[in-house]
Amino acid sequence: MPGNTIGQAFTLTSWGESHGAAIGGVLDGVPPGISLDINKVQKALDRRKPGGQHGLTSARQESDQIHILSGLYDGKTLGTPLSFLIYNKDQRSGDYDAFKNIYRPGHADYSYTMKYGHVDHRGGGRASARETATRVAAGEIARQILQLSFPTLQITAAVIQMGTQKLNASWSGHSYRENPLFCPEEETIQSWIAYLNDIKSQGRSVGALIEVYVKNLPAGLGEPVYDKLDADLAKALMSINAVKGVEIGDGFGCIAAENGYDELSAGTPSKHLTNKAGGIVGGISTGQDIICRVALKPTSSTLQSRKTLTKDEIPVDVSITGRHDPCVGIRAVPIVEGMVSLIIMDHFLRWQGQCGTTFRK
Amino acid sequence: MPGNTIGQAFTLTSWGESHGAAIGGVLDGVPPGISLDINKVQKALDRRKPGGQHGLTSARQESDQIHILSGLYDGKTLGTPLSFLIYNKDQRSGDYDAFKNIYRPGHADYSYTMKYGHVDHRGGGRASARETATRVAAGEIARQILQLSFPTLQITAAVIQMGTQKLNASWSGHSYRENPLFCPEEETIQSWIAYLNDIKSQGRSVGALIEVYVKNLPAGLGEPVYDKLDADLAKALMSINAVKGVEIGDGFGCIAAENGYDELSAGTPSKHLTNKAGGIVGGISTGQDIICRVALKPTSSTLQSRKTLTKDEIPVDVSITGRHDPCVGIRAVPIVEGMVSLIIMDHFLRWQGQCGTTFRK
Amino acid sequence: MPGNTIGQAFTLTSWGESHGAAIGGVLDGVPPGISLDINKVQKALDRRKPGGQHGLTSARQESDQIHILSGLYDGKTLGTPLSFLIYNKDQRSGDYDAFKNIYRPGHADYSYTMKYGHVDHRGGGRASARETATRVAAGEIARQILQLSFPTLQITAAVIQMGTQKLNASWSGHSYRENPLFCPEEETIQSWIAYLNDIKSQGRSVGALIEVYVKNLPAGLGEPVYDKLDADLAKALMSINAVKGVEIGDGFGCIAAENGYDELSAGTPSKHLTNKAGGIVGGISTGQDIICRVALKPTSSTLQSRKTLTKDEIPVDVSITGRHDPCVGIRAVPIVEGMVSLIIMDHFLRWQGQCGTTFRK
Amino acid sequence: MPGNTIGQAFTLTSWGESHGAAIGGVLDGVPPGISLDINKVQKALDRRKPGGQHGLTSARQESDQIHILSGLYDGKTLGTPLSFLIYNKDQRSGDYDAFKNIYRPGHADYSYTMKYGHVDHRGGGRASARETATRVAAGEIARQILQLSFPTLQITAAVIQMGTQKLNASWSGHSYRENPLFCPEEETIQSWIAYLNDIKSQGRSVGALIEVYVKNLPAGLGEPVYDKLDADLAKALMSINAVKGVEIGDGFGCIAAENGYDELSAGTPSKHLTNKAGGIVGGISTGQDIICRVALKPTSSTLQSRKTLTKDEIPVDVSITGRHDPCVGIRAVPIVEGMVSLIIMDHFLRWQGQCGTTFRK
Repeated sequence: MPGNTIGQAFTLTSWGESHGAAIGGVLDGVPPGISLDINKVQKALDRRKPGGQHGLTSARQESDQIHILSGLYDGKTLGTPLSFLIYNKDQRSGDYDAFKNIYRPGHADYSYTMKYGHVDHRGGGRASARETATRVAAGEIARQILQLSFPTLQITAAVIQMGTQKLNASWSGHSYRENPLFCPEEETIQSWIAYLNDIKSQGRSVGALIEVYVKNLPAGLGEPVYDKLDADLAKALMSINAVKGVEIGDGFGCIAAENGYDELSAGTPSKHLTNKAGGIVGGISTGQDIICRVALKPTSSTLQSRKTLTKDEIPVDVSITGRHDPCVGIRAVPIVEGMVSLIIMDHFLRWQGQCGTTFRK
Repeated sequence: MPGNTIGQAFTLTSWGESHGAAIGGVLDGVPPGISLDINKVQKALDRRKPGGQHGLTSARQESDQIHILSGLYDGKTLGTPLSFLIYNKDQRSGDYDAFKNIYRPGHADYSYTMKYGHVDHRGGGRASARETATRVAAGEIARQILQLSFPTLQITAAVIQMGTQKLNASWSGHSYRENPLFCPEEETIQSWIAYLNDIKSQGRSVGALIEVYVKNLPAGLGEPVYDKLDADLAKALMSINAVKGVEIGDGFGCIAAENGYDELSAGTPSKHLTNKAGGIVGGISTGQDIICRVALKPTSSTLQSRKTLTKDEIPVDVSITGRHDPCVGIRAVPIVEGMVSLIIMDHFLRWQGQCGTTFRK
Repeated sequence: MPGNTIGQAFTLTSWGESHGAAIGGVLDGVPPGISLDINKVQKALDRRKPGGQHGLTSARQESDQIHILSGLYDGKTLGTPLSFLIYNKDQRSGDYDAFKNIYRPGHADYSYTMKYGHVDHRGGGRASARETATRVAAGEIARQILQLSFPTLQITAAVIQMGTQKLNASWSGHSYRENPLFCPEEETIQSWIAYLNDIKSQGRSVGALIEVYVKNLPAGLGEPVYDKLDADLAKALMSINAVKGVEIGDGFGCIAAENGYDELSAGTPSKHLTNKAGGIVGGISTGQDIICRVALKPTSSTLQSRKTLTKDEIPVDVSITGRHDPCVGIRAVPIVEGMVSLIIMDHFLRWQGQCGTTFRK
Repeated sequence: MPGNTIGQAFTLTSWGESHGAAIGGVLDGVPPGISLDINKVQKALDRRKPGGQHGLTSARQESDQIHILSGLYDGKTLGTPLSFLIYNKDQRSGDYDAFKNIYRPGHADYSYTMKYGHVDHRGGGRASARETATRVAAGEIARQILQLSFPTLQITAAVIQMGTQKLNASWSGHSYRENPLFCPEEETIQSWIAYLNDIKSQGRSVGALIEVYVKNLPAGLGEPVYDKLDADLAKALMSINAVKGVEIGDGFGCIAAENGYDELSAGTPSKHLTNKAGGIVGGISTGQDIICRVALKPTSSTLQSRKTLTKDEIPVDVSITGRHDPCVGIRAVPIVEGMVSLIIMDHFLRWQGQCGTTFRK
């Protein structure tokens, strides 16, 4: 399969350039007869929507209205492909004319040109984070389906570090009040807003650390030895724009630690005393919380002047004047939740295919 | 596809339990007519072989002799599936009888039982790191094929941190003298050996940080938006036993950094002035060094007593007396190289399929 | 993968119900930088369009206008997913209200209900032949790309039997004057039209035999032992609505024949004296014409009254009064060409991936 | 995926050349905890075994003993890959030295050479029907697993035409007494044996028509619109050596027929009055018998002299003196049953993944 489909049993095939007519996706393998709440899908898209967040993220006014074109009849899934699209309305392609023949540093202009030769330079084209809207929509659909089988399932992400700013205490995956920075610590929100406004006013940008918890998922999901649940999560998360690192459980912290195991106990709901493993051992879920952290690099489009090359390899200085987020990591929170939902859904159907109750004899 | 096949155009299907008759793999999509040096494949397996390394890793005497069963005729690949196997000789299954009904903490006994019901408890069965020998063999075959098209290609991994011990200086991916700890810094080897002997004598274990460089790979490999080169590397590396984190380029270090981009310049071979991105932007290689780091947790099988449950959920204390590595991370170096080689090979064939020179018009 | 994607290196993911908002498809793995002639894609759709053909096929007025939503910029392919859709305009869903709770014999109402529980009954929903428009559009795009590498390639299908009516002489795959019955024999067209009008006026229907030739394709395409070129063609053709049989070369005729081989000779362009094999031996193309025949059953929607069940399993008699084709086989000609084009394209990219010239040493 | 893996949820990856060390396969996606009867797998292999059948098929003495290397512990499946191999013992490669530089007409020597350049000429290498032993073994394992969920399931094939010889009456898929010709009509066996001995003594060969029935499979299996159950069966059957045609239900007979539908009725177990469709409508099983027919060409290796080319394209005459079957179709009966079993098994797991009872709400 070429690279625009993710999943094995529950698949998302995604398409669309940032400034083309539309972006969209096709979900296949959707279980039939399930009532979907499309308003909630729209709400998930709105959470990711740039500009709706106190001016702290990109000012582009995307309407991001989802249109379901197939796979749904009378409000319920048909089991056939569910196709959806989102039109690209506020395209302002002219903003990008100046960059048509320039490789913008930190963007994929150079590597895309090396691979494809012919590229759509407008807003990054296919390499734009605009593409991630399809991940959010598809992920929310996956989550709704999962919830039918696992009513207490929770998939929650938050920003736990933004640039140099950390939380006062560690977060444990609990739900939190919606806020523009996806900060799970109520008392920290205002200082982060001040920090980010400062960054923005200086035309700078910073990275972010996002943490995601999956709670109340049963043990047994994951397909060793290559499609381990953690391996598939790592891929799904690393495929998000600007992500440069992924860790599970104690992650990089385990290098200098000792006793890299979690003792088992009959007295706890999860049957384990600790959760250094982050809920996955041997590539299979243990029934404990699944915990991942994702590192995102600072936005490349800052206001500083920088050295680059034209497509004819003439050195030039360039400074980006278009819209930008001072911290792309913020917007990645719903995307992370979406990708985790897609992977869990895919593994649930794969588990059910191989291990469905009919067989345990 | 179920979970024991990796790759799309160049695939490894792996099989085998630690204490079954054998382990092995099937490579499909192998280009035809290529002379393979099977001695080098054997040598790669020997590098990973436990016990051959100054007594610092597991004492199990695996012969790990590779047998090629198909796909090779007259020393050259046929383009048909290349099947290989390695017999499990030193099985000593009796070592594991005591653990037949116990979930060993940190091992996959619990999660495998939750998924499959019926498990092969001997030495971890399919969850054992023994399975990784197939990755090393397949990876070396991939590397040999890649080398024909990219004669200067280098794929080199090293241990850059072991427990609390770091290198004196950062490593830049250069080749180094073979040594039992895969330590790339000559003057550090002896102190690491002393450190590890100390850990071992106390029945403890520590984690490790492995870094891998891919040098002299052209720009243009990677299949956005899901099969990005970094996403596929993250999956392949996270699928290795004991790995808990993966990062590319500046990785987690980029969170608090600024200017998350690399300027371009005509004056350098790689056309970039820095390499914060780790050689991959937008999911496609830039022609710069590809740089990944992988965190491995400490071996779970240490000599301390620990709490656990029997399969009937009776609490017991257990202490592992079998063979073990004080630092599994060491043995992972050839495995990391193998997985990276497999992914690069797969993406090379995928690139050639879609973008082969016939089409650039 | 679920069932709505075909191909491995060049994939079509298809979606849409007959009376939903739209139908469409996503092509992935498209080689970049290729100029596409969208007018020709539209023309291919028009060839398949019911009602445009002398009133001999279904009277539904589908506009079938293709909209390209991504993957094309400045008239050339980007190498990113090419998404297209066709709106369903003349939906007249009311026509189908009477059949909402009835299993129409010969249609997929019963089997779809058994599988999915919840179905879109309008016009057959996903089971409608309307879906095949996406195959025609995608196939024409594949053909245009193939033509760049193989300028003399021809993929031509024709109706060689319609009900009891056969051609006077065997057809050899040559191109022929466009006519509403896709009949390759000029002198036979009028008698077939008379025959079909007769069938139609009586509310009856007949089946058809379609033959397809691929000319001027080089030897070497096909992926044994399962993705043989003939096996993939058989699947692609059998997946077309109403198809009940597929044969290659001498096909079923070879059972009672002898000498089931083609002698080789230096004196002919194809290096073979005969072509009983139909251009594929061992699952790989020989460079001769590829020849397949496809049997299509008579349209199920005829005017006769017939026995069936309601969804509550009450016996009823039903007679279909909606639009119908007296011979669906006719419309299948462009669909057959489309599916063959998709399979050849996929195998071309797969061949190039594994066997690209770099490797033949 | 390259071409040596079949299935999506239950996969067989096959490997091996006719005269290499061994042939074998890897089954992945196997449900865990299932007791397998390996003796029955061996018995299935023996049914296919050439030479064991009254001297009517190839005289090669293959021992065809199956060795299970993984995935089975204590007699029960682990849910991990089940690897098996069969050594090639009676290799007599010398028989083929004379053909090393000659394209044998009707064999894949020419097309394999065009694709791969470097080929294993001995006995056809990968193109040999020897490869099909893995299909039979894997298919028997699939059948045993299916039988647990569908105790009355029957998958039975028979030869219904051999050369010019047909049965006296049509066969309805019932089981029949084992006989060397897989002839389901007791009174016909002796005349067929006489006919075939005659063919053999003259060094000639004939084709065969095999019919296969699947009885007592529930409605609902199949994955439209490309992985329709009939489409996947067509591919699986067409991928068998020497197969040139596949039809379902009335197949090619429906071209000139009318009323191409089966009426429904409450009074029959299958809810249908007839079965023209062959048990599959819209690509999904109806619960009726699934009926396919497969045409196999005459063995290419007959004793007549024939024209061909050397690999240097020098014309020569060649006559094959090695072992051969006068009718390869006979041996294909267990292979056909095996392939049908694999496809049904794969679709069962796919159905269970998407439509498992948890979801029908």
